[in-house]
Amino acid sequence: MNISMIRYILFQIMRIEGALLLLPCLVAAYYHEGVGLYYLGVAAFLLIAGFIGCAFKPKNIMIYLKEGCVSTALSWIIMSIFGCLPFYISGEIPSFTDALFETVSGFTTTGASILNDIEGLSKTALMWRSFTHWVGGMGVLVFLLAVIPLSGGSNINLMRAESPGPSVGKLVPKLRYTARILYLIYLAMTIIETILVMCGGIGLYEALTIAFGTAGTGGFAILNTSFVTYTPYVQWVTAVFMLLFAVNFNAYYFLLMRQFRKAALMEEVRWFLIIVFASTGVIFLNILKMYKTAFEALTHSFFQVTSIISTTGFGSADFDQWPTPSKFILVLLMFIGACAGSTGGGIKVSRIVVLVKTIKKEIYSYIHPKIVRKVSMDGHPMEHDVIRSINVYMATYIAIFAVSMFIVSFNGYDLETTFTAVTATFNNIGPGLSLVGPTCNYSFLSLLSKYTLIFDMLAGRLELFPMLMLFQPMLLKELFKGKKG
Amino acid sequence: MNISMIRYILFQIMRIEGALLLLPCLVAAYYHEGVGLYYLGVAAFLLIAGFIGCAFKPKNIMIYLKEGCVSTALSWIIMSIFGCLPFYISGEIPSFTDALFETVSGFTTTGASILNDIEGLSKTALMWRSFTHWVGGMGVLVFLLAVIPLSGGSNINLMRAESPGPSVGKLVPKLRYTARILYLIYLAMTIIETILVMCGGIGLYEALTIAFGTAGTGGFAILNTSFVTYTPYVQWVTAVFMLLFAVNFNAYYFLLMRQFRKAALMEEVRWFLIIVFASTGVIFLNILKMYKTAFEALTHSFFQVTSIISTTGFGSADFDQWPTPSKFILVLLMFIGACAGSTGGGIKVSRIVVLVKTIKKEIYSYIHPKIVRKVSMDGHPMEHDVIRSINVYMATYIAIFAVSMFIVSFNGYDLETTFTAVTATFNNIGPGLSLVGPTCNYSFLSLLSKYTLIFDMLAGRLELFPMLMLFQPMLLKELFKGKKG
Repeated sequence: MNISMIRYILFQIMRIEGALLLLPCLVAAYYHEGVGLYYLGVAAFLLIAGFIGCAFKPKNIMIYLKEGCVSTALSWIIMSIFGCLPFYISGEIPSFTDALFETVSGFTTTGASILNDIEGLSKTALMWRSFTHWVGGMGVLVFLLAVIPLSGGSNINLMRAESPGPSVGKLVPKLRYTARILYLIYLAMTIIETILVMCGGIGLYEALTIAFGTAGTGGFAILNTSFVTYTPYVQWVTAVFMLLFAVNFNAYYFLLMRQFRKAALMEEVRWFLIIVFASTGVIFLNILKMYKTAFEALTHSFFQVTSIISTTGFGSADFDQWPTPSKFILVLLMFIGACAGSTGGGIKVSRIVVLVKTIKKEIYSYIHPKIVRKVSMDGHPMEHDVIRSINVYMATYIAIFAVSMFIVSFNGYDLETTFTAVTATFNNIGPGLSLVGPTCNYSFLSLLSKYTLIFDMLAGRLELFPMLMLFQPMLLKELFKGKKG
Repeated sequence: MNISMIRYILFQIMRIEGALLLLPCLVAAYYHEGVGLYYLGVAAFLLIAGFIGCAFKPKNIMIYLKEGCVSTALSWIIMSIFGCLPFYISGEIPSFTDALFETVSGFTTTGASILNDIEGLSKTALMWRSFTHWVGGMGVLVFLLAVIPLSGGSNINLMRAESPGPSVGKLVPKLRYTARILYLIYLAMTIIETILVMCGGIGLYEALTIAFGTAGTGGFAILNTSFVTYTPYVQWVTAVFMLLFAVNFNAYYFLLMRQFRKAALMEEVRWFLIIVFASTGVIFLNILKMYKTAFEALTHSFFQVTSIISTTGFGSADFDQWPTPSKFILVLLMFIGACAGSTGGGIKVSRIVVLVKTIKKEIYSYIHPKIVRKVSMDGHPMEHDVIRSINVYMATYIAIFAVSMFIVSFNGYDLETTFTAVTATFNNIGPGLSLVGPTCNYSFLSLLSKYTLIFDMLAGRLELFPMLMLFQPMLLKELFKGKKG
């Protein structure tokens, strides 16, 4: 195990986080909030420690999948621990566990909150809270790859461990440029959304927090009522952008390159749109009677569908009060999640599509046992290994889900609360149903449950295996006893 | 498609069902219940139609997996339709849908009832109701294979379609003798249980219904209170036999043949027992305070664990009132289910074990990418195709589950009721939680929901694909347009 390289990456991450923390410092300076000093302190510490640590570049910079996973998991844990310090030290979130929960929820773009009164926080804290979504959305290691020359050709293992989806593709031969292109698209779309939201009469500060929450498909809002009080215009703009950020970013690259054929051939995106519009239609009909006008019902159904399937978790309405079919569809969308290669979470549409195709293939093979068909995607036959990894992913997903639910069940809340608390955190959505519904929060859970859900949020965001590996005795031994291989 | 052979098998099934219906006729004669005439009428019709139909034996007796699946699915549907006629014609269950639901629930060994007052039924009807469990438990096509010389060597496709588990093994080279051995073990164990229950002061009639319900892992009881009022002795005897009938029957064959080493090597059985005892332990500690004595708590926890994991569904206590961790464990056990090659339902322990092993293998391959390990079971490496079929099974399982839940959700009941109604029928258990809990029944559901659950019960019992194939336009065309290939 190349431990010096892992250490080097972690110091780089600290340096980056130190720089990112300067944004809330700016906000504090602008609004004259003294709490900014805590942010400045943590930023200074991270920058100094990071620069010192990065001075010693390791000789062997080769990293394999193992090191990629471990660096990614540890990076996210370290980022969360340092990221929660300003909340905790400033006393704005008095409990360390709660501060950590909120920060992990931010970076993993979950949006599950332990705050009873969001509006009680300083503007500085709220900006940092929303900004963690933006940072976590595209991934901090992808950012690292974009800005720092980590040559070696093995960096794809870092990206593989952090990017959502069954397989990671390079847009251009050089990984560094792929990472840059992705971040540029991400940045451009965020700016456009900010401007559009501001056109709806929202100030820059608030518009930025909305855009950060949407872009990362996070879900932290700065109002206790989330999106209920915003105008339909702002709700629609946000809903459309939640949809856009949940689409595989490769599609935008193809569009930019004028490769329209390639973009149109992306089966995952097609299925994603079909699911969104079908779900919106059914929910619309199902909740039509609950609202005064059809437009209002349509707004809420489209907003909640895009909010849940993109795993953002903004709330324009209390969907816990909706009829069972609508609630069931939303729960189903929580599991399906966004497209691979987007900023969203969940199982991912492409995995679902592949699984459905394997079912079709199996039934076909019962009827015509002699004809061998291959599952294909985007017009190409799929490699056996990708299908296998999707199957293992599903099994692992179910196993982690069951164990988490078992632990949380000891809190003694009803099954619906227990089930959707795990669902909403593991899939990085935020609000669940019943006691963790859109008008509630996660503050009442026990310490053990909170740490379980913190693990679930990280495992969900990093697609299970990087986090699971930290529990492998074999690997821990290598990690603590020094280099080997 | 060899349609004449499918037709021939269906007539054989009718003949067998006609013969089986004579048991309730005997009960009617003994207890002087006039309702027996309806049973005699249906039996006579089935026997006559069956004998006439079977007179024309097809020339080509070869059947492939396709024909095996179709015959099995159609056999079970025909058996259920004719089996429900006495309930319906006699007026004891006035609605045809309800009578069909009850009969499908019987044959599939689910035990979900639509009866509000079970004790209001005649002794004849109650005997037939319990007897359907026994017939469905080991399977009627396996019975057919045991008694009728269907030579051709291709009959394994019938057994494959009806037997639970990822792969079907012959105990002895001749399939006919394998089927006979299985039925003899089944019969012997049923007789032993009947005698042991009678030792607890229960009469022959009642003991038989208990034994039928246990042996088939069905769950229909003849008392409205299920097993609540029975003595702890009867509860323990039943619990132990629920456990025994949920074990892979191959284990008993090995024991009979004094191949103790082979029996001890059966990993699935070992894991099954570990799960049962661990779950009993946790639930025991969790419900200890709810009962007067530790023995009572132990009785209920062991009884409910064996009842649920064996997918029987007898109730010694109202577990809907238990704390959330216990309820969650029971729901988890509903999905896990019994061993392959037993009379129980669910996903089957062996599938779960294989899935967990693929997870372990995946994590190992992240750490040591160069070492290729194979998943092995019972000391032998597993064939890739079996693992693949387990993965497809899981995907199909989830897909059917989601669609069923979607349909049932339109009944407008809470998510827990909707979720556990599908869980309890699809896994062939019987009682769920909340409105379909152990003290309730399924009578209040809508027609559409009832037919959905009827499909789920059949799909669950026949391991999904035989039932799914009936919805394939390609296959239906072959079926209705005559022979082809």
